[in-house]
Amino acid sequence: MRLKPTELLILFAIGAAGALIGDAGAVSAQTTRYLDHSVPFIWESPIWFPALVGLGTVSVGMLRIRLGPTRPGFDLRLGIGAWSAVVAIYSITSLAGDDGTASVALVVTLGMITACFLADVPGLICGLAAAVVGPIAEIVIVELDLSEYTAHNDSLFGVGLWLPGLYFAFGVAVARITELMVDQE
Amino acid sequence: MRLKPTELLILFAIGAAGALIGDAGAVSAQTTRYLDHSVPFIWESPIWFPALVGLGTVSVGMLRIRLGPTRPGFDLRLGIGAWSAVVAIYSITSLAGDDGTASVALVVTLGMITACFLADVPGLICGLAAAVVGPIAEIVIVELDLSEYTAHNDSLFGVGLWLPGLYFAFGVAVARITELMVDQE
Amino acid sequence: MRLKPTELLILFAIGAAGALIGDAGAVSAQTTRYLDHSVPFIWESPIWFPALVGLGTVSVGMLRIRLGPTRPGFDLRLGIGAWSAVVAIYSITSLAGDDGTASVALVVTLGMITACFLADVPGLICGLAAAVVGPIAEIVIVELDLSEYTAHNDSLFGVGLWLPGLYFAFGVAVARITELMVDQE
Repeated sequence: MRLKPTELLILFAIGAAGALIGDAGAVSAQTTRYLDHSVPFIWESPIWFPALVGLGTVSVGMLRIRLGPTRPGFDLRLGIGAWSAVVAIYSITSLAGDDGTASVALVVTLGMITACFLADVPGLICGLAAAVVGPIAEIVIVELDLSEYTAHNDSLFGVGLWLPGLYFAFGVAVARITELMVDQE
Repeated sequence: MRLKPTELLILFAIGAAGALIGDAGAVSAQTTRYLDHSVPFIWESPIWFPALVGLGTVSVGMLRIRLGPTRPGFDLRLGIGAWSAVVAIYSITSLAGDDGTASVALVVTLGMITACFLADVPGLICGLAAAVVGPIAEIVIVELDLSEYTAHNDSLFGVGLWLPGLYFAFGVAVARITELMVDQE
Repeated sequence: MRLKPTELLILFAIGAAGALIGDAGAVSAQTTRYLDHSVPFIWESPIWFPALVGLGTVSVGMLRIRLGPTRPGFDLRLGIGAWSAVVAIYSITSLAGDDGTASVALVVTLGMITACFLADVPGLICGLAAAVVGPIAEIVIVELDLSEYTAHNDSLFGVGLWLPGLYFAFGVAVARITELMVDQE
């Protein structure tokens, strides 16, 4: 099974949209700051940020397809709920104010609750893969001096210690959304 | 189909109760402030505030009935969960501290998640109607100098920019509660 | 019906683990402070704290069994979600910053939502019992000068006014986890 071009485009679009909203919150709340302003910005984000998250969303969707059969049944509410859960958790990372124990515990447990509602085993694997790859990509971005996390949000090699929890929810949600899209074919 | 007097009374009571709790949080957190003290107060609210929200709750219930058949099945937990979700989101608007992007994104996505759990199409319409009418009513109240939202919570013509998200959840929840009440007849 | 030794051990372990995580958040956020340092500490907690919560978890499990038949059906996601919900609410008590009306309303309504998803009537009784006994135990601990809640988190005889809401969620979650364990036998 393969994802069609329109499906890839939808995954890219909803990932980029979530990234723009969440990142606008993070920049406004001064959780993150962009150091390089040589590229065009959309809202509060340099253009490469939503692009990267969009590509990450496509990648998780493709990973989900390869990991095994998807569950049947289409319900738009599952897809909207999954997307909303990730943007909600993203916003909470901005509002929490730091990456102390309580913030990290809240983000991780919300990610786990999201998985309990949405994930099958392949979805869980997508979540875990995103929880590893996503923060590594952001650590590289910080190392390249393109952006930085502020003082109380940089405990994980310069990025927020809650970031794996957020990416876990992201991976789980994208896997579920991918299942819904495939069911529609 | 029509709502019976006792049902209208229940809708009024649960709306007014939620308003009193949420408003006490908003006043204590200094998100909102009442400027006119010429009327009796209940807890932290002038008596007209819970009355207006109670009437708004009744109105949404009546709107829901007119919008089409209600879903069968009574589960008290759905009603309590719906009411609790709105009060929880209301409380979050007080705790967030401002109506910046992250706060608005959190409130709106929580409203969307509430709708994903509870709403059918008529319920969605109730949520959208409440998201338009509720903030307009509050803008009028602020314009009449009866109350004000504080400096960082007044981006939407003097009221919180997260207010439509909160009223959306309110409309969706009241619609679902109305369905449960009608099923009990 | 009786809980087996391994089941009692599992209940103790997940209770103690949740207590250690939540308490580390509370101590870091300076919601609570330990005054007595004469005993060994694990992470941020004196050894008796996770032990007491572990015993409380076992007690709620035993209470649940006595209150009537448990629901059939095993789903690990229900157990993980229940545990996560309590740790999430615990973390929110640390992040809220005080025990004002909005914080208390948020914690209580989140506890109620948790119950709407998880509780049957015996589970509700477990939640209510925990909401009474848990805070009383903590008030005694504070009276013994072993720990204290900070100035804005001590409205309930020296402990957080949100504490009954947190323990209510705890009792409901433990009851549901107990049902899942018994179903596995």
